[in-house]
Amino acid sequence: MKLKLKRVHIESPEIIAIMNSKTAKSLDIHAGDRIAVGYNGKSISSDVDTTDSLVGLRELAISREGLISLGAKNGDLAKIALNHRPRSLPYIMKKLDGHILSKDEIFAIIREIVDNSLNEVEIAYFVSGVYEKGMTLEETVNLTEAIYKTGRTLSWNGKKIADKHSIGGIAGNRTTPIVVSICAAAGIILPKTSSRSISSAAGTADTMEVITKVDFSAGDLRKIVSKVGACLAWGGSLGLAPADDKLIRVERLLNLDPDSQLIASILAKKLSVGSKYVLIDIPYGEGAKVSKIEALSLKKKFLSVGKRFGLKIKVVLTNGEEPIGNGIGPVLEIIDIIKVLKRQSPPIDLENKSVKLAGILLEMLGKAEKGKGEKEARQILNSGAAYKKFEEILQAQGRKKITLEPGKFSKDIVADRRGVIKRVDNKLINSLGKVLGCPADKGAGIYLYKHCKDKVNKGEKIMTLYSNSKINMDEALFFYNKFRPILINNN
Amino acid sequence: MKLKLKRVHIESPEIIAIMNSKTAKSLDIHAGDRIAVGYNGKSISSDVDTTDSLVGLRELAISREGLISLGAKNGDLAKIALNHRPRSLPYIMKKLDGHILSKDEIFAIIREIVDNSLNEVEIAYFVSGVYEKGMTLEETVNLTEAIYKTGRTLSWNGKKIADKHSIGGIAGNRTTPIVVSICAAAGIILPKTSSRSISSAAGTADTMEVITKVDFSAGDLRKIVSKVGACLAWGGSLGLAPADDKLIRVERLLNLDPDSQLIASILAKKLSVGSKYVLIDIPYGEGAKVSKIEALSLKKKFLSVGKRFGLKIKVVLTNGEEPIGNGIGPVLEIIDIIKVLKRQSPPIDLENKSVKLAGILLEMLGKAEKGKGEKEARQILNSGAAYKKFEEILQAQGRKKITLEPGKFSKDIVADRRGVIKRVDNKLINSLGKVLGCPADKGAGIYLYKHCKDKVNKGEKIMTLYSNSKINMDEALFFYNKFRPILINNN
Repeated sequence: MKLKLKRVHIESPEIIAIMNSKTAKSLDIHAGDRIAVGYNGKSISSDVDTTDSLVGLRELAISREGLISLGAKNGDLAKIALNHRPRSLPYIMKKLDGHILSKDEIFAIIREIVDNSLNEVEIAYFVSGVYEKGMTLEETVNLTEAIYKTGRTLSWNGKKIADKHSIGGIAGNRTTPIVVSICAAAGIILPKTSSRSISSAAGTADTMEVITKVDFSAGDLRKIVSKVGACLAWGGSLGLAPADDKLIRVERLLNLDPDSQLIASILAKKLSVGSKYVLIDIPYGEGAKVSKIEALSLKKKFLSVGKRFGLKIKVVLTNGEEPIGNGIGPVLEIIDIIKVLKRQSPPIDLENKSVKLAGILLEMLGKAEKGKGEKEARQILNSGAAYKKFEEILQAQGRKKITLEPGKFSKDIVADRRGVIKRVDNKLINSLGKVLGCPADKGAGIYLYKHCKDKVNKGEKIMTLYSNSKINMDEALFFYNKFRPILINNN
Repeated sequence: MKLKLKRVHIESPEIIAIMNSKTAKSLDIHAGDRIAVGYNGKSISSDVDTTDSLVGLRELAISREGLISLGAKNGDLAKIALNHRPRSLPYIMKKLDGHILSKDEIFAIIREIVDNSLNEVEIAYFVSGVYEKGMTLEETVNLTEAIYKTGRTLSWNGKKIADKHSIGGIAGNRTTPIVVSICAAAGIILPKTSSRSISSAAGTADTMEVITKVDFSAGDLRKIVSKVGACLAWGGSLGLAPADDKLIRVERLLNLDPDSQLIASILAKKLSVGSKYVLIDIPYGEGAKVSKIEALSLKKKFLSVGKRFGLKIKVVLTNGEEPIGNGIGPVLEIIDIIKVLKRQSPPIDLENKSVKLAGILLEMLGKAEKGKGEKEARQILNSGAAYKKFEEILQAQGRKKITLEPGKFSKDIVADRRGVIKRVDNKLINSLGKVLGCPADKGAGIYLYKHCKDKVNKGEKIMTLYSNSKINMDEALFFYNKFRPILINNN
């Protein structure tokens, strides 16, 4: 049956489709059934809701994303059919039962994720299967290829494109803007796209968003990179690796991040933006996402999969046992970044890590001799060239005119005894940041005065909490007292 | 912040909540976020969508189920807050990682399923965890108790209440209406609630719905049972074991049905309706849900868990290697049932199985001496008392005035060679029924002329397919030829 498409002005992470109950009944369709909507050779799937009054007979109300995916407009006639079970469900079952999936099977799953044939529950079963049973190297390669090839890709006329990525989980670990600024100042092309926070208090996109626009079309991104050699953008709106965005949305509910999916997700995005030189940072240790042993295994897998796609790839293992920098939370992190770039009392751990990573990229791209990268990176930073490049990127992306101010409510936390800082727990600090309102409340966050091995006197400030919500601040204090993210040992 | 509740006339399996984008922005809420809606001491959770135009500022559009759960009406002011992570997520993670859950943890999960704090993706992770890692007997007991105690229960002033259940998967296996009619004729009280089809072409509720109303409030159900001693109702609208309805909705996408969940689901529903005497039918064999070994293990678990709740429980293993009866599909199955009850050329396999099950219940409830139940059941059937009771139940539930007619399109399938029927595959027959339109198309289905070990001549009819849709009929023929649900061996 054909129904007239009628745009419904509802924004949702999934496509919305609503049908008149009478029309639904005549088609033997019930609220919650999945339908296929076909227009001009394209087809999408969606769960359908019904209404007695909001949508006319022989109409299908559909949200903007649905019209875009179909290439249809308000008023067009589309073919509606009750959808059969997605073709790839048996393959998801196969993975849950512990079997190895073929390339075709993996492509079928990823294609049906992209065209919305699989709903989030079915995607969750796939994620569980991969989490429980793992994937072979061959499966991981195929997963990477499927995620990469079912989305759009950027190309750069044969130029050498570089990229960096940290697997995340470390509070305040905002090296990317500094590394990109140093490397771009040296002439390396870095079309850097970042995600918003998944498990931490802020992602690079959340942080950059404080002072600049981060949300671009692929065309705009190309213009920015052509002009200034780099960008610091949000990857979400570019249509690169769309399967990955959906996988991440489902994974983040439980912070599930199986190895093979982590690798496929990262490398597929690097391949999508056209990168050839890739630097991966794996922070490890207590409180990080992975232990040293897991980090070494992950490194090996990154290298193997990357090699299969012809990438020049380096993986560095870094200390992930405590937060990096002093600020945690979007505004507080951008302040730290600017301190490093402007050479004004920079947090030394953030500076050193950024310089180290930038140095490796400079060597990989032939911008520094082997062994001289770090020195070269520090020189670029000290010369002011990196800060200049950062300013150029902000200008090209559309700088926001704002004063950088942390949340209006603040509360100092002081040491309850004299001693030495034994431990600053990344997971608890990230959770504390989230309770304070990060990343939506840009000014929310934590300023750390102390790092591991620092001495502290009784009554000395160890951190200040910030939030723009009084309720969040009260909850954060409760959280702090309950979980104690900082451990002080007797001296 | 308080928002005015505004009923939105959209029917969906999940509660719909829509907020004006501006209001959402002022609350730092994004489309897809989960919110808590509080009214008069009650609270529900829902994922929220946003709109620029359909909902006013400081309003929350909410679907009927939402208003009912809150006990609120159109125009009431409700408190809105961004929801924190559900408390039970760490327990779901714990199960995925293979650990045993405590009673408190299982109750927390089930409570958050019921109050909608967990969304379907999170429920899917729980189901995967249980599927992958299993549950101990103690966990299964706690799961049963949690599902049972988080819903409403029926009580019957100390009367002896009986129930039967088949774990399903066998096409045409519609013994329930016959067993209930025989036993109720003998004075046994049987407030039987059934589900709609999950994996088969029709469930008891789908079949009964052809000739009677099946959808009752708890109060109406009580009246019916008080009047005629039994009912044959749909369990879905009674508010019994609501967690189970949500679990089933998530499980059915992949037909995942882990043992412990199967047992908890069935026994929780029996406890909810107030049953004390429970008969479980486990069909086993090739094409059934379980093998003989699995059936034996399941039997043991049913008995152990049932005992913990003080149930008098019997479990029978029956032959599940081929469909039961001749008709498969709602109308065709109700015709078979009436043939048995009216003693007019009844399908003998359906009759024998029903009499056997009814006999066991008669013995359990002291309505027949030990070893005499089957004889007694057959006598009740032959005397016409069972048919009379069936008519009383129809009358009490609200009989529909219809002529029982299979689908208007039909197609005979004939044997392509002479031989003996080696195999009639339940799963394929059920799938064939679904392709024909079962259970939504009540007249769709299959009439089987042959069972295993029957002789057949080349060109002899082995089945007739029915549907009210020409397209479904064409697809069914394609399906039949591709998968061949009936295997004929050379004689």
